[in-house]
Order: sequence, then C-alpha cells, then structure tokens
Amino acid sequence: MAGPDPMNIDMIRAAATRLQGHARRTPLLNSPFIDQIAGRRVWIKPECLQHTGSFKFRGAWSALSALDEATRANGVIAFSSGNHAQGIALASSQHGVPSVIIMPADAPALKLANTRALGAEVVTYDRATEDRDAIGDRLAAERGLTLIKPFDEPQVIAGQGTVGLEIAQDANAMGIETADVLVCCGGGGLTSGIALALEADAPGLRARPVEPEGFDDVKRSLESGKIQRNAQTSGNICDAIITPAPGELTFPIMHRLCGPGLAVTEDEALRAVAQAFLRLKLVAEPGGAVALAAALSHKEQIEGDDVFVVISGGNVDAPMFARALNTLS
Amino acid sequence: MAGPDPMNIDMIRAAATRLQGHARRTPLLNSPFIDQIAGRRVWIKPECLQHTGSFKFRGAWSALSALDEATRANGVIAFSSGNHAQGIALASSQHGVPSVIIMPADAPALKLANTRALGAEVVTYDRATEDRDAIGDRLAAERGLTLIKPFDEPQVIAGQGTVGLEIAQDANAMGIETADVLVCCGGGGLTSGIALALEADAPGLRARPVEPEGFDDVKRSLESGKIQRNAQTSGNICDAIITPAPGELTFPIMHRLCGPGLAVTEDEALRAVAQAFLRLKLVAEPGGAVALAAALSHKEQIEGDDVFVVISGGNVDAPMFARALNTLS
Repeated sequence: MAGPDPMNIDMIRAAATRLQGHARRTPLLNSPFIDQIAGRRVWIKPECLQHTGSFKFRGAWSALSALDEATRANGVIAFSSGNHAQGIALASSQHGVPSVIIMPADAPALKLANTRALGAEVVTYDRATEDRDAIGDRLAAERGLTLIKPFDEPQVIAGQGTVGLEIAQDANAMGIETADVLVCCGGGGLTSGIALALEADAPGLRARPVEPEGFDDVKRSLESGKIQRNAQTSGNICDAIITPAPGELTFPIMHRLCGPGLAVTEDEALRAVAQAFLRLKLVAEPGGAVALAAALSHKEQIEGDDVFVVISGGNVDAPMFARALNTLS
Repeated sequence: MAGPDPMNIDMIRAAATRLQGHARRTPLLNSPFIDQIAGRRVWIKPECLQHTGSFKFRGAWSALSALDEATRANGVIAFSSGNHAQGIALASSQHGVPSVIIMPADAPALKLANTRALGAEVVTYDRATEDRDAIGDRLAAERGLTLIKPFDEPQVIAGQGTVGLEIAQDANAMGIETADVLVCCGGGGLTSGIALALEADAPGLRARPVEPEGFDDVKRSLESGKIQRNAQTSGNICDAIITPAPGELTFPIMHRLCGPGLAVTEDEALRAVAQAFLRLKLVAEPGGAVALAAALSHKEQIEGDDVFVVISGGNVDAPMFARALNTLS
C-alpha cells in the first residue's frame, strides 16, 4: 500500500476520548459453567449491552464525532439493514444531525421501525428493480450527506477498536499476559480495531476472527495472504456478520496482527446463544455468538488457559431466539 | 424495638469493601424504547448479570466474609430452592468452605444440579413427610454449621445494600437528585438495604418495593404500619420473590424509609421480561422483572422525570422465557 498507514493506535485512543460518556464501557463477564464446557477460563465482553444492541454504535459515534461541524450538520448516509443502521441512526440523532439510511423495501418490519424510531430517515428501494448506490449517490449529492461505510472506514475502525482498549485494560488488571481474543467477524472493522488496540496495550493477546462455516472469507484470506470472497452472501442465520469480502483497510491489519480464523456451524452458533441465555443472562444474536461458539465447540483450536470472547450483538427476533433455546431440551 | 439498631450504613460500606473484586459492579443501562413506554427516563440496574444470575450473591458473599475464620471454616447452611442457594453455594466454594443447602426433593432438576455444580452439598427432604427445620438443626449441630438466612440477617442486608450504594453513585454522577427506585421485593433484604444506602448517599432517591399482585405483603404492611402476611406462598410465576411476610429486621427499615409499594400482574411481569429481551438484551426472570413491569405498566403511580429499576435476577427456564416472548407477537 502506498502512502502513510491510514490507521494507528492514536486514532483509537482519540476515538475512546470522544466516546467517553456516550458509548457504554461494557463489563467483563464469566461463568463457571461456561468455563467447564470450554475447558479454560472464558472472559466475555458483552457488546450486546452496547447502545442499540451492538458494538456498531461505537464506530458510528466515532465517525460522526470525527467529522468537522459544518460537514456533520449536513447529515450522513449509510447503506444497511442491520446493526450499522441503528448505530448511525442513534449517533446522528444524539449529535442533532439528520441521517438517511438506505434499506431494502423487504427488510424486516421491526428493523425498519427501529431505525426510524432512533431518528433516521429510512429510504427504501426495490432490490429487483432499483440501484441502491445510484439512489444513495443522488441523495448524498442533493443534500451534501457524508457516506459512513460500515467497516472499511478509518474512524469506524477506530471506534470499534475501543473494545480492544477495554479488553486490554481488563486483561492487564487481571494479570493475564497471553490469550486468544475471539471476535465475531464480518468485514473486519471490529477485528482489525481490536487487533490494533491489543498490539499497543496488551501485545501478548491475539485477535482471532470467527465466522460462519461457508462464509469464512476472512479465514481463507488470512490463510492465503490475499483477499478471498464468499461464494454467496445470504442463506445463513448469522446474517449480521456476512459480507462479500474483508475490507481493503481491514485486511492488511488483520493479516499483520491476527491469529488464524475459526469457523462455526449454524447449530454451534445457536447452542452458544442458548448458553449465553442460560449462564450469562445475555441475549445474543446468532452472528454475535459465533466467537462464543468457537470457544465452546472448537476448544482444540484455541491456545492458553484464558480466552476472551466478544459477543458482538443481540438484535435477534423472538422466533430465532426460541429456536436457539430449543437446543437446550 | 429494644437495643441498638442492628443495621447501619457503615455495615453496608464495610460489605462493599469486602465485596470489592468478588461481586460485579453492574452497569446502568437504558433504552429510548423503554423510556417511551414508561413516559420518563428509566435507568436499569441489571443484577441478573451478577454472579449466579441474581443479587443474592452479594448478600451471600457479605455474610460469609463477615464470619470469623474459625466459624466460617466449619461451613454454612441455608434453606433455599432458588437464588439464595446458588449465591451461598458459590460464595462458600470461593471462600474454600463447605456449604449445605436444604432443598425440597421435588425442586426443579436444573436448580438442584446448578447448586451442586457451584460446590454445595444438597440435602433434599420430602415436603409431605419430613420437617425441613429439624433436618437443618440436626446437621448444623452435628457439623457446627452457621445458618445464613435469606433476608432477615444483618450482613445479608448489608450485602444487598451495596446495590444501593452503586445506584446512588451513578445517580449523583448524572446529577439526578430526586427519583423513585423500584425494587423487586420478597422478604425485603434487597429493598431495605437499598433504602439505607440511598438515605446516606442519595437522600432524594426513594426505594419502593414492587411485588406480584395477590402476594403484596410488603405493600400492605407499609400501608397498615404492621407486618401483614400473604394468604398463600405459591401459585405465581414470580416465585423467586414470594415470601410469607416481610422480615423482623427488614420491615422497620422499609417502614421508615420506603415510598408506597406497587403490585403487578403476572402478564405485566411477562411483558417486562419480553421488553428486557427486546430492548436491553437482558435475560430477566418474571420475579426479577416486576420492578420494570411497574415502570412500564403503572407509570401513573411513579413520580419524577427519572426512575431507577432493579432487575434482580435472570434465573428463568427456557419454557417460561418462551412464554414471555409470546407476549411480543
């Protein structure tokens, strides 16, 4: 890559300062029952307890707060039907600026309603007949909106990296010097941000991306050293973390810093959702539980007496949650 | 009451010191969706995230750690089929001392298994033919065990009161000077402890007990100024907080310090469990959600722009949780 590195630890520290008093400092949880299944001590970072139910609020707040005031006042735009949309919607309304979220017209009604309720203007399009990007470009040009991408955006990565600063601080306080840090991974914004934070503040901790089986583009990219794409981007209950490929910004960071990727089945993800319910009293969505699933079901691929696990989100509907609970009986 | 007051704020502060590094300092959560239903800002204290899934661990740790070493080494005994049992079991094994929990033989298998897995010796009795107290007295005498009562015990009240210290600290940091603090109430250990802590550290905040309709012994006792009993002690899904009557120690404290009690229906409790799932990503048990239910369904009985709500526990089984989720559809 030519030019200076677009990401560094100072950006993450600056994001942490901007997030202070706005994002939640999530606790670190554990359970002797989880430890027993996993065969080691498991330290849970529950980002499902973050505002809007996922870590995405951190990146959204970081990106919004990094804009100069005049640019921000015009408002922002994002393409998302999920957690990024809700993060942008709430961070924008808390900044007192407009946000436009472009969502497919057939997105779940609850997601459309939630995003609107958090203060965004939702613009829907027909997936079959309309060009999402063209609609976004037109609105952005007409209104002077700034596009905030979901992961391949320096200030978004910086915001997600604050999760890593907190894990490093807690690990240091507990005297844990080496451990794997399992991170639910889509485009790699959270994973790369955490990896950069750990490199600086807890260099014995190693971020490792976890993905759904069959959608393990990051795992394969790390193995080959080159960006690999997923053959498909739908058809898995871990929809929140499925993206076409790792990002141009996130992949080089992950390639330099991360340990090997892991992949889990849908059933393993559902069982992890059920254990989070039973033992941690947390609501996790399947895609937000893949890192826990790796700790519970793939312990032979993990090193050390301690492992950190990020539960990245909890925006799951009742029928899917009931399906996860059925794995307990 | 003759003699010196058995409870004071210094005991709560001393308990907080002993709990440091052992009990979790739970965060304070909120949601704009919850605020909208409640018609005011709602600040959630999620004690379902405490060790063993309920605030009971605080009182258990406080009581264990307050014993002199020789007494503690002999072990402790408790009567409980629920959250107190799990709190005592874990606090005892973390202190490296034995615990005996007397439970009915027909208690749910999961509760028996969990209590054993946390390190306790579980002794079961037949409700129809055996005398629980006689069994307990015999074991305590034979082994020199110390009985730890679930609520009417000064060091247990002191431990639960640390929830109030944390609420006071957070309220002061946010500049909230007056508010109701709604507390799920059984025998009154948590409510009276919180009330004492608020009196000292946030005197504009007022604890208010919340109970299931038909089991509102504390509410009626506060109204009449005398201890009133429940006509029955079973037959409600909020079983975790149903006790025969307020305690001899807890009632005078509640009578002196608490605002009026509130009572909620089973359906209101289930709907609160569902909102905690949907908007807070928390697993609450019905009895642990009655305070949230009061905030959501009885707003006309609450005063002020802000209200604090303790979610006291999350030990709910999957079928009951699924029943709560059904209220969303």
